[in-house]
Amino acid sequence: MHSLQHPPTLQDIQETHIAIAPMIHRTPVLTCSGIDAISGAKLFFKCENFQKVGAFKMRGASSASIRLSEEARRNGIATHSSGNHAQAVALSAKMLGIPAYVVMPENAPAIKVAGVRSYGAEVIFCAPNIAARESTLESVVERTGAYFIHPYNDYNIIAGQATAAKELIEDLPNLEAIIAPVGGGGLMSGTALATRYLSPGTKVYGAEPKAVDDAWRSMQSGKIEVNATTNTIADGLRTHLGEKTFEIIRKQVDDIFTVSEEEIVAAMRLVWERMKIIIEPSCAVPLAAVLKNPAVFSGKRVGIILSGGNVDLGELPF
Amino acid sequence: MHSLQHPPTLQDIQETHIAIAPMIHRTPVLTCSGIDAISGAKLFFKCENFQKVGAFKMRGASSASIRLSEEARRNGIATHSSGNHAQAVALSAKMLGIPAYVVMPENAPAIKVAGVRSYGAEVIFCAPNIAARESTLESVVERTGAYFIHPYNDYNIIAGQATAAKELIEDLPNLEAIIAPVGGGGLMSGTALATRYLSPGTKVYGAEPKAVDDAWRSMQSGKIEVNATTNTIADGLRTHLGEKTFEIIRKQVDDIFTVSEEEIVAAMRLVWERMKIIIEPSCAVPLAAVLKNPAVFSGKRVGIILSGGNVDLGELPF
Repeated sequence: MHSLQHPPTLQDIQETHIAIAPMIHRTPVLTCSGIDAISGAKLFFKCENFQKVGAFKMRGASSASIRLSEEARRNGIATHSSGNHAQAVALSAKMLGIPAYVVMPENAPAIKVAGVRSYGAEVIFCAPNIAARESTLESVVERTGAYFIHPYNDYNIIAGQATAAKELIEDLPNLEAIIAPVGGGGLMSGTALATRYLSPGTKVYGAEPKAVDDAWRSMQSGKIEVNATTNTIADGLRTHLGEKTFEIIRKQVDDIFTVSEEEIVAAMRLVWERMKIIIEPSCAVPLAAVLKNPAVFSGKRVGIILSGGNVDLGELPF
Repeated sequence: MHSLQHPPTLQDIQETHIAIAPMIHRTPVLTCSGIDAISGAKLFFKCENFQKVGAFKMRGASSASIRLSEEARRNGIATHSSGNHAQAVALSAKMLGIPAYVVMPENAPAIKVAGVRSYGAEVIFCAPNIAARESTLESVVERTGAYFIHPYNDYNIIAGQATAAKELIEDLPNLEAIIAPVGGGGLMSGTALATRYLSPGTKVYGAEPKAVDDAWRSMQSGKIEVNATTNTIADGLRTHLGEKTFEIIRKQVDDIFTVSEEEIVAAMRLVWERMKIIIEPSCAVPLAAVLKNPAVFSGKRVGIILSGGNVDLGELPF
């Protein structure tokens, strides 16, 4: 399989899905009559919290890593992340039998460091700021020759993340809307492309915390906006868009909704209490947007991408 | 359907399953390679935490309530419980369009009272002790003519609870062992009967907290033992066996394992972290027993009944 140099086509997404199938779970779609009653909509939850490593990130990381040549694989793969992408890269490398190098901030939670190491990856610590993260990654790549897998601004990653919406649409061909969270935009852009290709009549929405509403502002201004602060509980959504993800999102996404921190926690709690499944705060953002906007969603059949379930049980917001 | 006056036969369980099908979910069976690796066994989790009202109790309550005559239904149904059985009775009554009366201790958590009331049941408070609970229930039954649905010591209840193991065996016909938690014994006796009838070569085990090991002691002594204290986090398992459930359990259950409070919390945490599903402490007891007894379970295909997922998120043990 070749590395993608353009926004994934339908065929690219289909080929990616076949190629990564042995590395991912086909996750279930759950419903909840209690939350339907509260929202007034008919909701279908695509459970990427049950994905390998507990998040959709496994789709993108496997998509990027299987594309490497024999020779490139020998040097392994690298990334910088303290989140789900780090574990996804580490597990992808383990599955392919190649080395992985993960740059993490020295204040990363011990459980996340242990998680990455449990897949056999080498962890390299850096100071907890973006400059240190990037320079440390550069020196790791220089030392090892490893291939850097960007967490979102990469067409191979986008093709992988698109497979979640592809599966959702295969299971539910008549959705009226699909909504996903927006961080760096990998999941959002993949979701938008898969939906446009496979279910063109379905609306595609994004949701993000009000505190980091860079995507909403980027849609307004027509250029990539950044966040002055990243003060949100939704730790997976603090990043701003990349040029590749924004290029797709501005063309394909119908609207982006923002929600408050209180609305995120309330939606997260609702899922825990009513559905008995564990989702992380970032993952609750689209449901919070659905609950906040009954004029848009009430009476509709809505697919919600539940992006991940990795939470620190010692640090719950309730 | 007639009310059962004897331990349910296979035909009784089959008829019950057909009759209650519209009132319950057929719950999924999940697997987890991470927990398989830790346990050394191949585990199949029957997810009654996803059942209506969040627990297997809906099976028994619906089985008991649909058997009532037209005339008896007019007076409604009653029970005393501060737990999952109360919600199951309330929801069963709502589905059948009949009144429900639930006696609850005055110190019951507000969320549980609200849960029962949300199904339209009338809540009658009593002092938080067994004598007050029973006398209050008696006066409610006298006033209303409602039919008392016992939480476990009732063959109709046992036939309902048996349908969980029936579904599990239908999905996985070649299990080498099935394990369920033991409280009053409704789920345990139903699980044992269904397994004996449908998969006679499969071992049937029970698990209970060491702190309330009445079932283990009852198996040793041959008579119903009680618990001097009920100091366990597994609030669904504090009760002792009834004569109907013990009669079945002593004949049909191969062994009962006991586990410490620490082992219960560790197993609960493992399920939350690895499977991303919410289970209540009582529900973690069988997995704790499997992890504690590799000599019995390692290398085996084991069905675990996950009994429920109702936890107070403000009172977590981690």
